[in-house]
Amino acid sequence: MTDGVTDGRPVVAERTAAVVGTGLIGGSVLLRLRAAGLDVTGWDPDPATRDYAHEQGVAAPDTLEEAVAGRDVVFLCGPLPSLPETLARVAGATDEHCVLTDVGSTKAAVAAAATAQGLGHRFVPGHPMAGADGAGLTAATPVLLDGAAWVLCPTGSGMAAFRRLAALVIDVFGARVVPLSAPEHDVVAALSSHVPHLLAGALAGAVQRSALREAVLALAAGSFTDGTRVAGGPPERTANMLLANRGPALAGLEAVRAVLDELADAMRAGDRAALTALLDEGRTARAAVRGRTFAAHRREFPAVVDHAGELAYLRELGAAGGHLTQCRVEAGAVVYTGHLPASPG
Amino acid sequence: MTDGVTDGRPVVAERTAAVVGTGLIGGSVLLRLRAAGLDVTGWDPDPATRDYAHEQGVAAPDTLEEAVAGRDVVFLCGPLPSLPETLARVAGATDEHCVLTDVGSTKAAVAAAATAQGLGHRFVPGHPMAGADGAGLTAATPVLLDGAAWVLCPTGSGMAAFRRLAALVIDVFGARVVPLSAPEHDVVAALSSHVPHLLAGALAGAVQRSALREAVLALAAGSFTDGTRVAGGPPERTANMLLANRGPALAGLEAVRAVLDELADAMRAGDRAALTALLDEGRTARAAVRGRTFAAHRREFPAVVDHAGELAYLRELGAAGGHLTQCRVEAGAVVYTGHLPASPG
Repeated sequence: MTDGVTDGRPVVAERTAAVVGTGLIGGSVLLRLRAAGLDVTGWDPDPATRDYAHEQGVAAPDTLEEAVAGRDVVFLCGPLPSLPETLARVAGATDEHCVLTDVGSTKAAVAAAATAQGLGHRFVPGHPMAGADGAGLTAATPVLLDGAAWVLCPTGSGMAAFRRLAALVIDVFGARVVPLSAPEHDVVAALSSHVPHLLAGALAGAVQRSALREAVLALAAGSFTDGTRVAGGPPERTANMLLANRGPALAGLEAVRAVLDELADAMRAGDRAALTALLDEGRTARAAVRGRTFAAHRREFPAVVDHAGELAYLRELGAAGGHLTQCRVEAGAVVYTGHLPASPG
Repeated sequence: MTDGVTDGRPVVAERTAAVVGTGLIGGSVLLRLRAAGLDVTGWDPDPATRDYAHEQGVAAPDTLEEAVAGRDVVFLCGPLPSLPETLARVAGATDEHCVLTDVGSTKAAVAAAATAQGLGHRFVPGHPMAGADGAGLTAATPVLLDGAAWVLCPTGSGMAAFRRLAALVIDVFGARVVPLSAPEHDVVAALSSHVPHLLAGALAGAVQRSALREAVLALAAGSFTDGTRVAGGPPERTANMLLANRGPALAGLEAVRAVLDELADAMRAGDRAALTALLDEGRTARAAVRGRTFAAHRREFPAVVDHAGELAYLRELGAAGGHLTQCRVEAGAVVYTGHLPASPG
């Protein structure tokens, strides 16, 4: 929550934070929060990682409970399968004021776990979009998430927590906050991230099995190098991500395979026109990755009464490819600056 | 052919060259040859491209025949379907001394066309590996192919022409020359380039068709941006490339789909161990893209007698993932510096 502006620079309302799981993403979150002036603690189940954090001057207590006690906000950055259990431990060691969020690549499962634990009012499912070649705290950097698209999932009961967290990641990370429902996030993430990981893994795997593997590597063109980059990531992390979102990921893969079928049919038939038309569809989407323009708008809602209108606005904004660059609570109202694609395809 | 060394710098034996088809690749070949001091002419069927070449100070006659007459070497850089006809025109307008090559992304078809035209002794199928986002002479740059892996296809009857061209692209482009038979090249290129183009096109196409297209683009992570980059290229060029190599490309696609099937099965079964093992196969190949080390060696063959040993050496070198960084004819012998992967997987 940004509660004021001084000399044109936003003042970050949250004073203290903790990061649980200080790998590549968690470590980068921690380093950026610290650079922004917050009092930050980190905790990791790996003692060697805690020692390394100590050496970097990070407060890294021996227990999770010490690390999170009394904090305004806690980022859960451990592996996906560990999140429900970690969430329960962190909730038990923090007070009702403390906002909890995660950075996992799927959202429906952890959102359901939080609701089941009665934490829907202060847990905000989150997912910053960041490419990651390396792993671990040693690869972390305060700039990794700067300017990232950052999904946060608003709910009616969690609106106050959503606003505080949206303000924090906008102010500290320069994030473009994309508000989506948890299930919709997972469908979108399947195509924007999980299916690309499957394709990269399958391409690299097929080359690994090829009798001409060495010659293929020798001729690896840009298309191959680009298309297999994420296959270089830790298999365990990718497997966790895929299994946590397997329904939407398998559905997204089927959608890609349907286009692959059409491409292969056009090739077999020697149908140049059909093949070119299919490739042109892809070019249109690809051109839109960088070519989109946005129109900004300002929206205001009452801060304390019914949140139905605010929730509907936020979810429609995200589903339409939009994002927030400001969230401010002042004089009984919440004010958003939103951006919508100017010419959706 | 490098016929001498002065002050440690190789002297390029070829004095004059022509480039037919001055698009992105052809234009980049032309600019680099000119920068290396060769007398170079260019020709393109498009008058506006010839005008633009003129404006850049390039000799660009109005007819193909004027452009290639009397040249030592001609690079055919037009679209794949045009190559057999262009080859016949260029051969008719040049003398027996002139070495011909192309830069197309498939080799078996053009090699067969050259043999059918009785040009096997002076046409050397070629393929420099270069990623290309843009298109056209305006996107060309002399550095595009610097240090590229550059396939050249040696044959018994074309050995003298192979040596001259290998020396030229090593000396002028700093190329790593990968000698492969034309059919073997096409199998390798399918996995190293053509299948990645199919996967990129299918991924981008599936997103284009998605109801949540705008949100997918908003969350496009590195994996998506990387995995669709080549889908931004001209559909006609990609279609030409895929159709010219459709047998090996479809076979390569089937190999990738087999791995995709295994990945999907492991996901459906919730089999974390199987999924991780599959992803680890891909990581091994991916790690080898940058992690390979090479051991250098020197090989010498008689320059003028039987070429069987030389041909076998060259093709084995390329199939094993190796390359040449020197080709020199001196005192009745041809001397190669070759490099083989030190620890093939």
